[in-house]
Amino acid sequence: MKIGIVGCAGRMGRMLVNETAKTKGCEVGGGTDLPGSPFIGKDVTLIAGLEESGVVVGDDPKALFEAVDAVIDFTAPAATMKHAKLAAETGTILVIGTTGLSNDQKDELKVAAQKAPIIFAPNMSVGVNLAFALVEKVASVLDKDVADIEIVEMHHKHKVDAPSGTALGLGEAAAKGRGVNLDDVAVRSRDGHTGAREDGTIGFATLRGGDVVGDHTVVFACEGERIEITHKASSREVFAKGAVRAAKWAEGKAPGLYSMREVLGL
Amino acid sequence: MKIGIVGCAGRMGRMLVNETAKTKGCEVGGGTDLPGSPFIGKDVTLIAGLEESGVVVGDDPKALFEAVDAVIDFTAPAATMKHAKLAAETGTILVIGTTGLSNDQKDELKVAAQKAPIIFAPNMSVGVNLAFALVEKVASVLDKDVADIEIVEMHHKHKVDAPSGTALGLGEAAAKGRGVNLDDVAVRSRDGHTGAREDGTIGFATLRGGDVVGDHTVVFACEGERIEITHKASSREVFAKGAVRAAKWAEGKAPGLYSMREVLGL
Amino acid sequence: MKIGIVGCAGRMGRMLVNETAKTKGCEVGGGTDLPGSPFIGKDVTLIAGLEESGVVVGDDPKALFEAVDAVIDFTAPAATMKHAKLAAETGTILVIGTTGLSNDQKDELKVAAQKAPIIFAPNMSVGVNLAFALVEKVASVLDKDVADIEIVEMHHKHKVDAPSGTALGLGEAAAKGRGVNLDDVAVRSRDGHTGAREDGTIGFATLRGGDVVGDHTVVFACEGERIEITHKASSREVFAKGAVRAAKWAEGKAPGLYSMREVLGL
Amino acid sequence: MKIGIVGCAGRMGRMLVNETAKTKGCEVGGGTDLPGSPFIGKDVTLIAGLEESGVVVGDDPKALFEAVDAVIDFTAPAATMKHAKLAAETGTILVIGTTGLSNDQKDELKVAAQKAPIIFAPNMSVGVNLAFALVEKVASVLDKDVADIEIVEMHHKHKVDAPSGTALGLGEAAAKGRGVNLDDVAVRSRDGHTGAREDGTIGFATLRGGDVVGDHTVVFACEGERIEITHKASSREVFAKGAVRAAKWAEGKAPGLYSMREVLGL
Repeated sequence: MKIGIVGCAGRMGRMLVNETAKTKGCEVGGGTDLPGSPFIGKDVTLIAGLEESGVVVGDDPKALFEAVDAVIDFTAPAATMKHAKLAAETGTILVIGTTGLSNDQKDELKVAAQKAPIIFAPNMSVGVNLAFALVEKVASVLDKDVADIEIVEMHHKHKVDAPSGTALGLGEAAAKGRGVNLDDVAVRSRDGHTGAREDGTIGFATLRGGDVVGDHTVVFACEGERIEITHKASSREVFAKGAVRAAKWAEGKAPGLYSMREVLGL
Repeated sequence: MKIGIVGCAGRMGRMLVNETAKTKGCEVGGGTDLPGSPFIGKDVTLIAGLEESGVVVGDDPKALFEAVDAVIDFTAPAATMKHAKLAAETGTILVIGTTGLSNDQKDELKVAAQKAPIIFAPNMSVGVNLAFALVEKVASVLDKDVADIEIVEMHHKHKVDAPSGTALGLGEAAAKGRGVNLDDVAVRSRDGHTGAREDGTIGFATLRGGDVVGDHTVVFACEGERIEITHKASSREVFAKGAVRAAKWAEGKAPGLYSMREVLGL
Repeated sequence: MKIGIVGCAGRMGRMLVNETAKTKGCEVGGGTDLPGSPFIGKDVTLIAGLEESGVVVGDDPKALFEAVDAVIDFTAPAATMKHAKLAAETGTILVIGTTGLSNDQKDELKVAAQKAPIIFAPNMSVGVNLAFALVEKVASVLDKDVADIEIVEMHHKHKVDAPSGTALGLGEAAAKGRGVNLDDVAVRSRDGHTGAREDGTIGFATLRGGDVVGDHTVVFACEGERIEITHKASSREVFAKGAVRAAKWAEGKAPGLYSMREVLGL
Repeated sequence: MKIGIVGCAGRMGRMLVNETAKTKGCEVGGGTDLPGSPFIGKDVTLIAGLEESGVVVGDDPKALFEAVDAVIDFTAPAATMKHAKLAAETGTILVIGTTGLSNDQKDELKVAAQKAPIIFAPNMSVGVNLAFALVEKVASVLDKDVADIEIVEMHHKHKVDAPSGTALGLGEAAAKGRGVNLDDVAVRSRDGHTGAREDGTIGFATLRGGDVVGDHTVVFACEGERIEITHKASSREVFAKGAVRAAKWAEGKAPGLYSMREVLGL
């Protein structure tokens, strides 16, 4: 299976190249960078720290979509929307790990997915998606008068929003387990005279600093005991791994918009 | 429902008295201490820090079994075996949180359980029993070539064995999830030149110190990410809580030997 | 040394009785509860779970101050201010663990301390006061362009303010280490579009739930590594321990207002 | 300052190239790989994921030592000993992050250090060396009858020895703080019937799994509270950072064998 990487010269792009190259049954079929980049014309695998493959960095996404079986995209919302259209035009599998899409953009994805298999997930790691399932389970067993649910996360200092999309995803899993809407029970931060904690709420706490890739813990605090489900991403490699796994899974699938839960069979 | 506490003047005993007194539908029906104890004849609830109830500490377990609907026992193996016989003779519910029973003693429990409902669990907390279920699930999803399983626990400095019974229970849950026997894959400690970690093993690490009631973490370490399931007991109260819950659950049940998994419906 | 406990029938009061009774060189010299309490006239040590001592619970604080060498007070601001006056009148050592005093009330303490040794600390545990010192040290070594400082704490669900006084104390220690004012650099919570983290800020994150006595972690997040200083209180006993230690330390000291840092010699 | 990297095509080598290139006042002066490596003749910075610099990978360490001001070496003991001789012959600064040197090899380093400044440290991260200082301090304040010291570490599955050199270093710092020898008090692992914890011992617990770079926690467990000092390395980058910092620090220093403690002024 030939996999192409848009934005292949960036940090995440180089990881995707590495992961593709080392995955059985996959090969790096091409890569693009922005026109004018100093990496255009360089060997895609060499700049990713591997041996030369003869495949060079291009600047034309359309040519890439025509040349490969699947494209992986961890770029930015505007670019991703263009890539979704190219996927639809060419019927090419598209795996999207880009974050920060607006609701309108998510709707556009659904349209593109009528013509090509598109896998879209705010967090592609196997571990995080497994954590979603565990949190939903525990929240369904421990009632609101038994356990207080709190979610704490830490990310690097460059992150501009709080709580993280993954923390909110964990909150949604907890709310689903209890049969409530997260918006009705979320306490997104605390400061000053808050009063005693209200039963049934789900609290969030946000830490920022250093280059932390992403740590999340969901605490179920009961009288005399706590259960905690923690996910620690130590390398963006896990998102690369999940993306390549998604691309392989999508081979031969009908057009449609898929999530990691379906990819992982959770 | 009248609940009796054997060993009611000890630290755990006083917690069981407290938990019973504050549980709806339950009352403290009696308590015993060893003959010669300075607490014999004192008020059972007063010495537990509650208001006087008029129920005094006795030294005759048989009288206790005859007077109450259920007895809770967190004493020591030899005493517990005597109590099991009294439960059988009187048909009284017996909830056992005593640890360290030999295999022979566990077999004797089965005999006693033909005449009375007996609930026996190495760890009575809701949280720990839930953790068992989560660990089994994760271990079944993450293959041995994807995740390395490690279990670390910390207990107070008085604990004489390692790893803890609960840590081994977590290891058994993990092994069950993978369809293997724990004895075949357990690495109970590491020291010196160990060589690289062997795939499929389950490692244990033991910390001792202070008055830690019991912390357990199961780590599933993958490339680039970790999932951790943690249980922290902050008070022996959780064991008391689980025991009273078990006693209530057993009301009206047929004789038999039950576990917390059945009590909690997990 | 005879130590009296005001509010001796409450949860914290009973712990103080226990700690006093088991400390070499100290004995329980008396205790009070509110007039009308069902515990008036009961044995102070018996209701604390110890053997009878013949000392009974009274309802007159003044009599208590006259009968003992030191009084320990973990009650509420209004009551504590009355006790401070009694300490001044009788020249008795007073150890205050009460939280939530206003600035005016703190000023009144200084007046009372002209006539008696008064030890006042928002957190009496040895560990927390040691953590203050460590945090100040690390903050002085790791510049703001090297480390991002974040403070996360968890307390039980009944706590009504955020961040905790101890978390703010840790923030002050960090700010002092860097030679800045906490008020100028504190980010007390995060929600929504926060923008990237600003260098030199000190962030706080607050969790509430269950019966957590008090967990605090200060994270120094650098590129590629984190140093964390964590304090976990597993029992209010540590505050009792610190209070009795403070009372013993104050024996023979001149009138004055002292902190735990002086008691511990940090 | 021109810095050369031996083993520059390996994972750690590429990080050292990156760190050198981005450090003000430093430039990559050369790099070597083993004779026969496919990277010989390739551009040193290009294979490290940077733009081309025109400096190519060589296979002659001696030429490298003659061409640069300092060499950084994270290779293997046998190679490192050859490099130490080249440093002595050429008077070039040598920074050594290689682990696993025998006592004899460490003695040989002292000889070479008579002719060139050599910085040698089992762990070059600023954070770990700061943790050593904190642990020594806390151990000196909290007596053995107050706090039980336990050290737990986790490393990737390829690590072949236990406990890690850094964990042992933390143990030595704790022992020094208490004025004892680590060998006299170390409990390097626990399994089976261990008996109650002996006061004054320092316990170790080892976890292995995944690709964990290195997590270390020293727990001081007291009655009712715990203080923990934790170091988490999320990237081998911190070792690269420390090594480049050491190289810069050594500029103009007299020949001698130095540690990171001197480099960092702790």
